[in-house]
Amino acid sequence: MSEALRTGAVIGILGGGQLGRMLAVAAARLGLRAHVFDPDPAAPARDVAAAATCAGWDDAAALARFAAAVDVVTYEFENIPLSVIDTVAPLRPVMPGRRALATAQDRVAEKSFLNAAGLATAPWAEVGSRADLDLAIARIGLPAILKTARMGYDGKGQVRINAPAEADAALAALGGAHAILEGVVDFLAEVSVIAARSADGRVAAFDPGENVHEGGILRRTTVPAPALSAARRTDAVLIAARILGALDYVGVIGVELFVTRAGLLVNEIAPRVHNSGHWTQNGCAVDQFEQHIRAIAGWPLGDGSRHSDVVMENLIGEDMARVPELAATPGAALHLYGKAEVRAGRKMGHVNRVRPRG
Amino acid sequence: MSEALRTGAVIGILGGGQLGRMLAVAAARLGLRAHVFDPDPAAPARDVAAAATCAGWDDAAALARFAAAVDVVTYEFENIPLSVIDTVAPLRPVMPGRRALATAQDRVAEKSFLNAAGLATAPWAEVGSRADLDLAIARIGLPAILKTARMGYDGKGQVRINAPAEADAALAALGGAHAILEGVVDFLAEVSVIAARSADGRVAAFDPGENVHEGGILRRTTVPAPALSAARRTDAVLIAARILGALDYVGVIGVELFVTRAGLLVNEIAPRVHNSGHWTQNGCAVDQFEQHIRAIAGWPLGDGSRHSDVVMENLIGEDMARVPELAATPGAALHLYGKAEVRAGRKMGHVNRVRPRG
Repeated sequence: MSEALRTGAVIGILGGGQLGRMLAVAAARLGLRAHVFDPDPAAPARDVAAAATCAGWDDAAALARFAAAVDVVTYEFENIPLSVIDTVAPLRPVMPGRRALATAQDRVAEKSFLNAAGLATAPWAEVGSRADLDLAIARIGLPAILKTARMGYDGKGQVRINAPAEADAALAALGGAHAILEGVVDFLAEVSVIAARSADGRVAAFDPGENVHEGGILRRTTVPAPALSAARRTDAVLIAARILGALDYVGVIGVELFVTRAGLLVNEIAPRVHNSGHWTQNGCAVDQFEQHIRAIAGWPLGDGSRHSDVVMENLIGEDMARVPELAATPGAALHLYGKAEVRAGRKMGHVNRVRPRG
Repeated sequence: MSEALRTGAVIGILGGGQLGRMLAVAAARLGLRAHVFDPDPAAPARDVAAAATCAGWDDAAALARFAAAVDVVTYEFENIPLSVIDTVAPLRPVMPGRRALATAQDRVAEKSFLNAAGLATAPWAEVGSRADLDLAIARIGLPAILKTARMGYDGKGQVRINAPAEADAALAALGGAHAILEGVVDFLAEVSVIAARSADGRVAAFDPGENVHEGGILRRTTVPAPALSAARRTDAVLIAARILGALDYVGVIGVELFVTRAGLLVNEIAPRVHNSGHWTQNGCAVDQFEQHIRAIAGWPLGDGSRHSDVVMENLIGEDMARVPELAATPGAALHLYGKAEVRAGRKMGHVNRVRPRG
């Protein structure tokens, strides 16, 4: 730990949403300070950060000042422009690195990387034109999902195609963006692995969680994952470890997987702490946020073994009306993000329901 | 919960040390904002507070501005001048109230209150003069401990008297301050109860912890407490509940007890979150810091049942050199306070060692 960041060192966090907020708290728990960069003056992470910069992603001078004020830079979401990394990286270490970010930002790059690493995915094809789409449908079959290659999240930028006649409308719905067609997977369950890799190449994974999405947004994560046998749990962790190694990754990654009768398929990777890892806050001695800070600060990875079973449920939009009831529920640990404005589909907080380990 | 504070409401915290820091984080977890008042520009809580005021305890104008900027006021240590409460209380609710603070600030008032509430303490006598001291020694016997009635903490302001000939020196060592003589208790163990009371009179207690002090400073807290039988655990919690009720208290209190062959004696009360309650951060779904915020914010008290066994150890001064080793220890959860300067006897952080509940 000779090069580890020590008390008072500053973690620069690009993005000040709820993930940045929980990263800032984790940094403080290790005696480190957080400096958040976000264009939004009401970014939730500001309330718990030692310092904050409010400026646009295209403000190179502000980014340079931010970099000069911190010891290491990380990010809380994968849709920051790569130009931001290119501005900051010559000045300070950025972890995870540019390659992980670039891979996760583009579904074509992501699927290509995964397949090249020997990992199975849904069948897919790049779609740059109407002719591409016809070929892709012929090869993959229907139903399939047409997705923008870039900047998708929480189910946005996706159109399902059930019949060839819907192809034109689907392309139009994406506004001509560079796209990918993905075969619909007949999965038994969706699971995710939250794993971490340190700069010296050690890997630690939390127990996989089983996820339920509604309307494209994560609704619930259950740990341990009922759909996973012990052998499949090991498979899931090994897949995450292979991805971390192939990307020479430092930090926490979220790997979403489909469980099918034939085995596990990788759905997507998120080069950051992940909503499906929030259960670790009440299930482990060291949670995903601290694990990420440890990795990028050069600390040893912490003990992420599960001491309790947890069901994490997101509080989305009007779910906030349930807070008084949840606050009085035995075993319920609330985590609210301090967002003033309640909007439909907006992640406002989450609740971890904790039970003794079964 | 109709009058409960909601997202964005501001908790004012008098004192910005490590307790204020962990209270600020707990407030954020409930979607609330923290505003810290401390004369020290380097106060540890500032790093995680949404706002901070740096001014002296005698700056009435700054205190009034602070009060105007918050929704409720609490404090993280019991040695704030009562004049601060008197300035703030007409402007905003202060919880716990003035009576709890005044009682805890003065050992004579504290012991009088405890005995009046029917609770046993060590034998004690007020000492205002040399003549008082002679009478006190005659009544209580030796060895005994002469303590300043006010402003003592971490073993400061205390002198042990083993023989009558030491009386003069002991009085001189306290510089003539108003004092109290306390009989030395032949205790089997020291334990503490961290308990909370809500504004509507509900009480919740965490499992009692067993404390080991070294040089007057808390070294270690073990939960469950080996020295307590089930019956004594209940006694300890009932004592804390009686104190909370008698003070019409709102918030978290720390009650230190001596375990003797004859029963439990109350040593002292701290009208705030308490070092011996830090284990709750890794042993319970809702920890003492969140429990305090819930109580003063008008929320229902949370589930503080113990899901894991914990040994909390303080990291004092040069103990910080052990951080790299502790960071790599399975089951060890670190909590560092971000204090730049390491000084002998200074509380720099703590580590919770977590094991499955036995």
